[in-house]
Amino acid sequence: MTYQLHYWPTIQGRGEFVRLALEAAGARYVDVARGSEAQGQGVNAMAAFMRAPGVRQPPFAPPFLVDGKVVVAQTAAILLYLGPRLGLVSKGGAKRLWTHQLQLTIADMVAEAHDTHHPVGMGLYYADQKPEAARRAREFCQHRLPKYFAWFESVLARNPKGSAHLVGRRLSYADLSLFQLVDGLLYAFPNNTRRALQHAPLLAALHDHVAQHKPVAAYLRSERRLPFSEEGVFRHYPELDA
Amino acid sequence: MTYQLHYWPTIQGRGEFVRLALEAAGARYVDVARGSEAQGQGVNAMAAFMRAPGVRQPPFAPPFLVDGKVVVAQTAAILLYLGPRLGLVSKGGAKRLWTHQLQLTIADMVAEAHDTHHPVGMGLYYADQKPEAARRAREFCQHRLPKYFAWFESVLARNPKGSAHLVGRRLSYADLSLFQLVDGLLYAFPNNTRRALQHAPLLAALHDHVAQHKPVAAYLRSERRLPFSEEGVFRHYPELDA
Repeated sequence: MTYQLHYWPTIQGRGEFVRLALEAAGARYVDVARGSEAQGQGVNAMAAFMRAPGVRQPPFAPPFLVDGKVVVAQTAAILLYLGPRLGLVSKGGAKRLWTHQLQLTIADMVAEAHDTHHPVGMGLYYADQKPEAARRAREFCQHRLPKYFAWFESVLARNPKGSAHLVGRRLSYADLSLFQLVDGLLYAFPNNTRRALQHAPLLAALHDHVAQHKPVAAYLRSERRLPFSEEGVFRHYPELDA
Repeated sequence: MTYQLHYWPTIQGRGEFVRLALEAAGARYVDVARGSEAQGQGVNAMAAFMRAPGVRQPPFAPPFLVDGKVVVAQTAAILLYLGPRLGLVSKGGAKRLWTHQLQLTIADMVAEAHDTHHPVGMGLYYADQKPEAARRAREFCQHRLPKYFAWFESVLARNPKGSAHLVGRRLSYADLSLFQLVDGLLYAFPNNTRRALQHAPLLAALHDHVAQHKPVAAYLRSERRLPFSEEGVFRHYPELDA
């Protein structure tokens, strides 16, 4: 079965957390909105799916995954669905729930990172909310970033199966998402993130370790990996990274 | 088994989504931080649990639920765990995943409602970010609120088992959470929310219907239901509700 991933074609964004899971597992998938219109793909195919009145469970927003008759939106729910199918989550309800809880906390931090450049609202440009963004980014870098990193560090330190992974002794989708979160923060706020990582050596090691995971490393080198940019969730505005 | 719910004792906040599920199902639970210090409860007991180095799966923030050896944080993950135990989710993986996806979208809208009064950051007072809040609230009321409501309305309209519930023909935790979301918005932005509900009659009916569910109605009349206030997620600042 080939999975269909629907997400904006020009940015990593939230779709990247799903892409990383599919790529790490070597799953077959089509990145629909990046495909050709001639083949019935492209961004219009994604938009048409979202608007189709016949879809019983319509997605509120991309990303969403189509797997035969199953349609799942919300990044964390997509990973909850894919995790066991891709072998990217430990067996057993307790570990699966814990992995999902970690994913939801990663999602919270992603949302806060996004809000640093769009504190007033997504409908406005960054240029129209620069003073607000400067205040929000200061709060994020000084308080939220160290707080989240300290928590992830403590989760790694307390893993009874070793500190190389968040849960158990194997790679999970939460490890992949945490890699992406740290990678995005290193792009957006290099000064503050490097400083914070000095106090979170296990987290820094997890980031480096995931980047070297063979399928992930091959993906990161490929053209399928879109670059970070000032259109995505993680944006580098030097003035916000004092 | 008595569930332990840990949440800030003076506000509804995110804990209220869990309280509503426990109350609707008539479950036995202790609202730990609202209990007495003499009985080993109170807010210090909650704080001590969060700091305890022996907790393998530490919560990042309240609310969290303790059920014997199980500790679960993140509102949506708590409800994912409680749903089947309280009979508040349909059977079958597909319906459970769909219910969870709805819950995550409710959580997104809750976060956006919160950010209207704290666009610059949670570490600052509302009084210190009034102009920013006015801009963010305008964006929220004009664009986001109608967009979310239209989506919930379409989900209710497309439920093949009838439009009284989000999923299937029975009350789920997502119905309870959607009631709380609408109730909070009616408190925070009465003008804009009433206007938006005129275009979402199924959503308005769901709100009223859940409020009349017997255990929920009894809970809402009880002292256990804390009032809305300007300390919680949903705050009424008339200047933000033009």
